[in-house]
Amino acid sequence: MPLVKVTRRVHFCAAHRLHNPALSDDENRRVFGLCNSPNWHGHNYELGVTVEGEIDPTTGYVIDLKVLREVAESVIGDLDHRNLNLDVPWLEGVLPSTENLVVKLWERLAPRIPAGQLVRLVLWETPRNYVEYSGG
Amino acid sequence: MPLVKVTRRVHFCAAHRLHNPALSDDENRRVFGLCNSPNWHGHNYELGVTVEGEIDPTTGYVIDLKVLREVAESVIGDLDHRNLNLDVPWLEGVLPSTENLVVKLWERLAPRIPAGQLVRLVLWETPRNYVEYSGG
Amino acid sequence: MPLVKVTRRVHFCAAHRLHNPALSDDENRRVFGLCNSPNWHGHNYELGVTVEGEIDPTTGYVIDLKVLREVAESVIGDLDHRNLNLDVPWLEGVLPSTENLVVKLWERLAPRIPAGQLVRLVLWETPRNYVEYSGG
Amino acid sequence: MPLVKVTRRVHFCAAHRLHNPALSDDENRRVFGLCNSPNWHGHNYELGVTVEGEIDPTTGYVIDLKVLREVAESVIGDLDHRNLNLDVPWLEGVLPSTENLVVKLWERLAPRIPAGQLVRLVLWETPRNYVEYSGG
Amino acid sequence: MPLVKVTRRVHFCAAHRLHNPALSDDENRRVFGLCNSPNWHGHNYELGVTVEGEIDPTTGYVIDLKVLREVAESVIGDLDHRNLNLDVPWLEGVLPSTENLVVKLWERLAPRIPAGQLVRLVLWETPRNYVEYSGG
Amino acid sequence: MPLVKVTRRVHFCAAHRLHNPALSDDENRRVFGLCNSPNWHGHNYELGVTVEGEIDPTTGYVIDLKVLREVAESVIGDLDHRNLNLDVPWLEGVLPSTENLVVKLWERLAPRIPAGQLVRLVLWETPRNYVEYSGG
Repeated sequence: MPLVKVTRRVHFCAAHRLHNPALSDDENRRVFGLCNSPNWHGHNYELGVTVEGEIDPTTGYVIDLKVLREVAESVIGDLDHRNLNLDVPWLEGVLPSTENLVVKLWERLAPRIPAGQLVRLVLWETPRNYVEYSGG
Repeated sequence: MPLVKVTRRVHFCAAHRLHNPALSDDENRRVFGLCNSPNWHGHNYELGVTVEGEIDPTTGYVIDLKVLREVAESVIGDLDHRNLNLDVPWLEGVLPSTENLVVKLWERLAPRIPAGQLVRLVLWETPRNYVEYSGG
Repeated sequence: MPLVKVTRRVHFCAAHRLHNPALSDDENRRVFGLCNSPNWHGHNYELGVTVEGEIDPTTGYVIDLKVLREVAESVIGDLDHRNLNLDVPWLEGVLPSTENLVVKLWERLAPRIPAGQLVRLVLWETPRNYVEYSGG
Repeated sequence: MPLVKVTRRVHFCAAHRLHNPALSDDENRRVFGLCNSPNWHGHNYELGVTVEGEIDPTTGYVIDLKVLREVAESVIGDLDHRNLNLDVPWLEGVLPSTENLVVKLWERLAPRIPAGQLVRLVLWETPRNYVEYSGG
Repeated sequence: MPLVKVTRRVHFCAAHRLHNPALSDDENRRVFGLCNSPNWHGHNYELGVTVEGEIDPTTGYVIDLKVLREVAESVIGDLDHRNLNLDVPWLEGVLPSTENLVVKLWERLAPRIPAGQLVRLVLWETPRNYVEYSGG
Repeated sequence: MPLVKVTRRVHFCAAHRLHNPALSDDENRRVFGLCNSPNWHGHNYELGVTVEGEIDPTTGYVIDLKVLREVAESVIGDLDHRNLNLDVPWLEGVLPSTENLVVKLWERLAPRIPAGQLVRLVLWETPRNYVEYSGG
């Protein structure tokens, strides 16, 4: 059976701040610039969740997109309208860069995908910046 | 010579319905939900056709995009403003999920690409859902 | 108080066909071309609903966007994954051109807007075509 | 001379929280829902600044877009990577809804437009929600 | 009958240079900056053509979009893949700023619109800059 | 450490013409069509620069996006508001097709990426056409 990739895009908005407590305040400002701004800033994030698998001959689906959407929304429900530094248990101690965030999203999503196999996440922080992760 | 991928995007709009005649009506409603709606619904589809090859030193092209566009449009001409379940001979008996549709589009496009090699199709069903296929 | 316009965008997908029973089949084909295709075609519609009003000093809102979204989605819920010619009681006897559709959407939405005043609808049929209506 | 409108779009990202100190915590949660989340959330805002005027026959410009961009960026520089509730002197005491924000942006921008006349601001909070203000 | 606005978007790509022969070279460089670059630069322009009128009860149309598209494409056919300073008879002697271009496009389009009335042109020079003209 | 891809998108506008001096004028017109138009045409190009690497545990970054942006903008600064056939020393003798341009951009960018590794360039010539190159 042909192998097809299926992607569902979901979005959330959140506040964060890039700040490493192991660095001095001066070093934090130098390394992170405006992203170290003390009272937080935020983004409209856009996440693409890609699953690859064979097409089920009964449904024509690799995965039911309603199910993929529910899984993705249940995970980003922890992030939406939240502070990524303060409010999310599974991000505790994580510097919430887009890179670290996409890896943590992978860890949450991969075991919840009910069919097929998670093969790629694309996380947009702004319309000009995005990161991709394939679980490697 | 360097290997470069070249993509042309084309679009079409069509009606369809997800319904498997091997299932009961109740099962069809349960499996496909709103997509099983009896009087059809439809989409503005967007298709990206990607060809990879070496750059021709005379033209600077991997493939003439006018030719790629004509090939793509001749194939989607069978789908545009049509019903994918009823009107397309090469989709007869195919459950017109996006996954099945992208595989059938590959079968139509691959032998018609005049230079280089078809390496990827991306088919958007909505701005939030898309599928990818690489002929495997 | 300042007058501000607030817009919420919602989307739906539907099948339709342009066909006027008062015309002959030949005339229908000539007038509507591919849009007269007998077995329907369809679109991903995008609707922007704009309300204008004074800002409520308690909430900073002209209208609660959650409420505006619920109103908009309750109305387009009748259209989503449906056939605009066959499935929608409030479109019975209406030739479902984008122009007629935006006027009918106005008639459904205007009395349901709980605060402020509906001042504009923008309805996209494709990324290249849209219509606007202001109730006049 | 013909009257033409010229728009420059700029963007910024910021954190905020909708919370009215005149209401109880319970009322704030009920009125603002997730937007009242205590540790802030944030957005990628997009602002369109529209100036209308006659075309200058020497330059072909209504306004030099470099100048319009500089004015717009100097004003949003106060907001970019900031907390709209805590960091912006000219938003002190303002509930930072999109509606209130667009009015305050108008007050900052209007006296700084060096030629022509500010006639419209469009402020997108997300790709699905935006507000418009014309100074009325 | 309800008054509805209908918009068709078309695109073209062209080279141009902002240079006023009545100014010295130094003044041209100061006024136009990079846009005065001597060997031209170029853009993908996007034009929205908006017609307003009553809905024809026979067709459900304000204007047949195929006709509107043909009119728009016949006019921009003079600009597409051309040099706006050198190649277009109806732009002779015109400083090809976006503002001047939209006024000239209005003059070409208005007498060719076969039904309804041209009420607005929107011309995008880049995704961040656009101009609007309503014939005033 | 996880391997993550990070992309920054930048844009520039430029004029060009497809013309191979080894071919006759007639052959150039036949091969390149409108793209051979003698007085140039132009585009708004959009370039995505993708770097892959391990996440730095101190910063949470694969690469500082400010640095990636500066590198990308320093290279496209040679192209922005220029003529790709006439103005760019490192494009001398190169037929400025999108394919050749992306390869030359790779040669300029790869040695300037300060951390991680350049793994992909995506160059959009129009919203419908783009090329990709991975250095092979």
